[in-house]
Amino acid sequence: MSQREKIPVGILGATGAVGQRFVQLLTAHPWFEVTVLAASERNAGRRYIDACQWVIPGDPPADIADQTVLPLEPNLPARILFSALPSGIAREMEPDFARAGYIVCSNASAYRSVPDVPLLIPEINGDHVALVDHQRAQRGWSGLIVTSPNCTITGPAMALKPLHAAFSLRKVFMTSMQATSGAGYPGVSALDILGNIVPYIPGEEEKLQQELQKLLGTFSGERIVMPELLVSGHANRVPVLDGHTVSLSVGFDRSPTPEEAIEVLRAYKPVCGGLPSSPDRLIFVRTEPDRPQPRRDRDAAGGMAVSVGRIRRCPILDLRMTTVVHNTLRGAASGAILNAELLVAKGYV
Amino acid sequence: MSQREKIPVGILGATGAVGQRFVQLLTAHPWFEVTVLAASERNAGRRYIDACQWVIPGDPPADIADQTVLPLEPNLPARILFSALPSGIAREMEPDFARAGYIVCSNASAYRSVPDVPLLIPEINGDHVALVDHQRAQRGWSGLIVTSPNCTITGPAMALKPLHAAFSLRKVFMTSMQATSGAGYPGVSALDILGNIVPYIPGEEEKLQQELQKLLGTFSGERIVMPELLVSGHANRVPVLDGHTVSLSVGFDRSPTPEEAIEVLRAYKPVCGGLPSSPDRLIFVRTEPDRPQPRRDRDAAGGMAVSVGRIRRCPILDLRMTTVVHNTLRGAASGAILNAELLVAKGYV
Amino acid sequence: MSQREKIPVGILGATGAVGQRFVQLLTAHPWFEVTVLAASERNAGRRYIDACQWVIPGDPPADIADQTVLPLEPNLPARILFSALPSGIAREMEPDFARAGYIVCSNASAYRSVPDVPLLIPEINGDHVALVDHQRAQRGWSGLIVTSPNCTITGPAMALKPLHAAFSLRKVFMTSMQATSGAGYPGVSALDILGNIVPYIPGEEEKLQQELQKLLGTFSGERIVMPELLVSGHANRVPVLDGHTVSLSVGFDRSPTPEEAIEVLRAYKPVCGGLPSSPDRLIFVRTEPDRPQPRRDRDAAGGMAVSVGRIRRCPILDLRMTTVVHNTLRGAASGAILNAELLVAKGYV
Amino acid sequence: MSQREKIPVGILGATGAVGQRFVQLLTAHPWFEVTVLAASERNAGRRYIDACQWVIPGDPPADIADQTVLPLEPNLPARILFSALPSGIAREMEPDFARAGYIVCSNASAYRSVPDVPLLIPEINGDHVALVDHQRAQRGWSGLIVTSPNCTITGPAMALKPLHAAFSLRKVFMTSMQATSGAGYPGVSALDILGNIVPYIPGEEEKLQQELQKLLGTFSGERIVMPELLVSGHANRVPVLDGHTVSLSVGFDRSPTPEEAIEVLRAYKPVCGGLPSSPDRLIFVRTEPDRPQPRRDRDAAGGMAVSVGRIRRCPILDLRMTTVVHNTLRGAASGAILNAELLVAKGYV
Repeated sequence: MSQREKIPVGILGATGAVGQRFVQLLTAHPWFEVTVLAASERNAGRRYIDACQWVIPGDPPADIADQTVLPLEPNLPARILFSALPSGIAREMEPDFARAGYIVCSNASAYRSVPDVPLLIPEINGDHVALVDHQRAQRGWSGLIVTSPNCTITGPAMALKPLHAAFSLRKVFMTSMQATSGAGYPGVSALDILGNIVPYIPGEEEKLQQELQKLLGTFSGERIVMPELLVSGHANRVPVLDGHTVSLSVGFDRSPTPEEAIEVLRAYKPVCGGLPSSPDRLIFVRTEPDRPQPRRDRDAAGGMAVSVGRIRRCPILDLRMTTVVHNTLRGAASGAILNAELLVAKGYV
Repeated sequence: MSQREKIPVGILGATGAVGQRFVQLLTAHPWFEVTVLAASERNAGRRYIDACQWVIPGDPPADIADQTVLPLEPNLPARILFSALPSGIAREMEPDFARAGYIVCSNASAYRSVPDVPLLIPEINGDHVALVDHQRAQRGWSGLIVTSPNCTITGPAMALKPLHAAFSLRKVFMTSMQATSGAGYPGVSALDILGNIVPYIPGEEEKLQQELQKLLGTFSGERIVMPELLVSGHANRVPVLDGHTVSLSVGFDRSPTPEEAIEVLRAYKPVCGGLPSSPDRLIFVRTEPDRPQPRRDRDAAGGMAVSVGRIRRCPILDLRMTTVVHNTLRGAASGAILNAELLVAKGYV
Repeated sequence: MSQREKIPVGILGATGAVGQRFVQLLTAHPWFEVTVLAASERNAGRRYIDACQWVIPGDPPADIADQTVLPLEPNLPARILFSALPSGIAREMEPDFARAGYIVCSNASAYRSVPDVPLLIPEINGDHVALVDHQRAQRGWSGLIVTSPNCTITGPAMALKPLHAAFSLRKVFMTSMQATSGAGYPGVSALDILGNIVPYIPGEEEKLQQELQKLLGTFSGERIVMPELLVSGHANRVPVLDGHTVSLSVGFDRSPTPEEAIEVLRAYKPVCGGLPSSPDRLIFVRTEPDRPQPRRDRDAAGGMAVSVGRIRRCPILDLRMTTVVHNTLRGAASGAILNAELLVAKGYV
Repeated sequence: MSQREKIPVGILGATGAVGQRFVQLLTAHPWFEVTVLAASERNAGRRYIDACQWVIPGDPPADIADQTVLPLEPNLPARILFSALPSGIAREMEPDFARAGYIVCSNASAYRSVPDVPLLIPEINGDHVALVDHQRAQRGWSGLIVTSPNCTITGPAMALKPLHAAFSLRKVFMTSMQATSGAGYPGVSALDILGNIVPYIPGEEEKLQQELQKLLGTFSGERIVMPELLVSGHANRVPVLDGHTVSLSVGFDRSPTPEEAIEVLRAYKPVCGGLPSSPDRLIFVRTEPDRPQPRRDRDAAGGMAVSVGRIRRCPILDLRMTTVVHNTLRGAASGAILNAELLVAKGYV
């Protein structure tokens, strides 16, 4: 795709923390060009640099900094829209954009569990993207909506997909230790998290089972057939800037040894790989006793890979392990960009 | 007990981080008076203030600061010895002291799993202390050894004892988020833990099942009958100064509802309470959605209580919950002091 | 003063972070009893426990938790009012309360620099309290207003007062490293301060010179005569929970050696000491090379003392030193309570 | 320089934290190829990956990981040696290597203040490199030693050089807030620095004046003529991972306004720029009120630039400002690599 053919894309909710990540990641994208920065009425009409409090290291790109923020109305000069909207607003507005012909790649939770909306991590279930044919037919939309999963389930889902395919996953205990950036900006107060842990993230634990089931499901023409699977989640906020760490105990129909699990993880071939934002290696298996760690492993493959380690037997289920994934890259903005790349590659754009 | 009758006590390993906590806590103790500060050869003969790098807020008590550190030999002018020795040295030396007639209250792991050595949290299994009769008879010691548990199992054990008594505990998934002070001084490097998590603590996960079984066991004259119980542990180090937080999923023979569990926890009567270091209230049940938290709850009842919260159903076992306990107070020095108080109260000193 | 004679006091802005400290500190106060918790309209009428998000470790006292929050109107059933109001609201409302006969002990900055309003740290300039006679005469108030200083200048002022008295202070370079609790709640976002420094605190540097001059001034019947004094301030926010640390270079008319300075600091006799909240020892001189430190020294004398250390020659001015003081105790709530005690002791209540 | 002509280089002290940074930075260097990893006897003979505890995010390069660590003897197969040795060992061994013909680019403090050894930041005093002609002549060495400055003075020196050239610097108050990575690994204990500040770094303050004078000096054939300059330093360790922040008050012969200073900083032309590791832009002037910040600005220009902000009048001297520089990149390993590049460019290799 030559530079002059770049696809015009927009960011909904461009001034927030995830919106800023979209800006940063799309700046040098080989296929996409940011033509729209849209945000709520309060910020519409202002220069981007004035409307947003830039929280990412460094500065916003100079050409973006001067763009005018547009209002959230379905007449934006872009083909693809990346949605970093709060869930309530996303629920209300994303269908309007899809109806108006836009390709909506949403990072919001609003439509993740809706049966005709794909919930995608291209490398593990990219084939689910075809569900949008059914979505468009049923709803009469010229555009479409696809979603990326909750940042907390993203790492475990990437690590468990190969194991599910080989051994049939049935039970998951997962305790998350989630980075503060997952709560957006200003998000968590320093007084709540400095030298502390908050063992609660509103609404988080409820999403885990349903999203994992959908991600690991099988596409059957008009719907995703979900595996029978129980997830017991414990969500904690920790004083880590970026990178969600999850301690897992997992049980399968056919119990693997740690060695078998490692072999399967290392041999995994992504469902849909080779996209511009897709990493060369999706899963890093760490065999040191004390890895993965969020600060040292979140940036594996540019923040697009999951790191899995401490794979060992579980006294109750089959295996224990730890995953780390970058929550604002793979777990948020980059995940949605990857979905857009998948849609382009599959001919939907 | 009048002030002039105070029992002379010593601290083995007095210069380390746990040793310093013993010093701090024993300074104003109603029954005990520190007459011995003992440490390895490297430090013996030096003034305490010169031999130790004081890491606790504030200063060591003036009268202690000037005492001379004694060598670790079984001729120390004290009746009770609190052992903050590293496990290897404890294994070697604690029996020598017991043989020589000392009451050894150990915080080391060396003898916790030995059948004739009590592993004690007075309020939940103080009746196990009578096991020392068998210990002395069998070994021909005029002194004795009692131990306090690993700081990580301490909080869950305190919270699970009432529930075990009422509903028979069978399975425990536990993910710890452990404070850095648990690793002693200098312990964890700042470069390893600032803004990071280390998902591994050497030897920690292995101790959890055995210690929990022994703590929840039944004393039967010459031994502790241990319940059948599986523990799947995930040990993590987090950037928190003090206070171990544990996320738990637990299963019982007779499944309680969250409400039944809360009722049982609130109604719990300690096995042996009323000791000087024993808190008025052993278990704080928190019903706010986001508690307990280590920084806000570790000091409950002066760091001697466990805080339990987020008691809710588990999709796989019966209940999920979170515990917080102060790891260097209840989980280390204060726990051993409480054991000494129990021995005094039961007439062993 | 017997318990039944306790003076009824109220807290203006009772639900915020400083207001909560007032609640905590006044609970067991020997002279005062909290009869009024007042806050903005949004919170008035609610139970205190429901209206405030309690951010201090532990829980609010049970009897306070159930009190109803009153509106900020000058008909409150109390004699003394502690003001933890934001500066803008304080500016507007504190005179109304003083006019209505209340003794207002303010922690706000609004009236600190007004000539007829005392700015007090009782132990260093408690004699300035008599300025209220002039205030009341001039304004015709039956009540009065006294203020406590900015939390950042409090530590340096306490350390510099004895040195100023002995050697005449002329120049101060001060770089503050301020705790996040100084910004209130929610205050600083975790994303701004985790593993980071923010070299700016709005409005802070401007206050330093004027407040230090007034604190070190001489009371002359109707006004405070201020010394000629230059202050160059650098205010930084750091990832420390409580305790403001300040690096100082100071110059005097009569250059002291470090030894002379230490001697003067150790020999200092407080102007007005002996109040219930006044510490036995006001200034802790630390001679270890690496003290004072905020986490280890902020609680000296219950958070009411200043710790001064690293007193050494300065290559440009006379001395360099470091101070640490607890910013929400001595530097905020306790400072205002101490002022109220001074007013009682001097017969103004 | 074509790839096959790459210059073989070695790292002395390759297993420590700074040594690891050298490894990381030299891996893809256009001019240099790592042929030697040398360390103390304890580690010599082991595989690099086994000998070092890798503390940098990610993994050591695969080809480096397998190399055998060599002993510190002057028969190493390399032309340039980067020294990350502790100062004591550097003092002893670096001359041996220089005598034996090696180009020693040292990050150690041992020879920084020796009159015939250049102390270099190429962009601000790269012309000083010619001092090595005198060094070699005088000492009869076929090799040579050049040094890079202390990481704490590096940022201020880069920011002050243009101002000194324009206005003649005379007085500097500087308070550093230094990252923990500056202390190496394991370095600072988490118990000392979590939520705390340590107002002391051994030996640090003493180096500041001498190094700044030498860096800002004028090369006159056989020596560096140093400006008359007073530096009052306050060194603090803070809980920041990377990036040294310094608050400065500075005085000049010809007092500039903040606007004049900004203009001079923006217009600065590096003495020796254009080297492979030299940034396109050396000095980033930040005009937002709250920048620079270590976490957001340390990576400016890949960690090779200094960020300067909060340039404002000083009530005592002329200007106040804040600098941030990456202490382990520009302030350590990259600084020494840049010196080697300078030596190559000037024909010394």
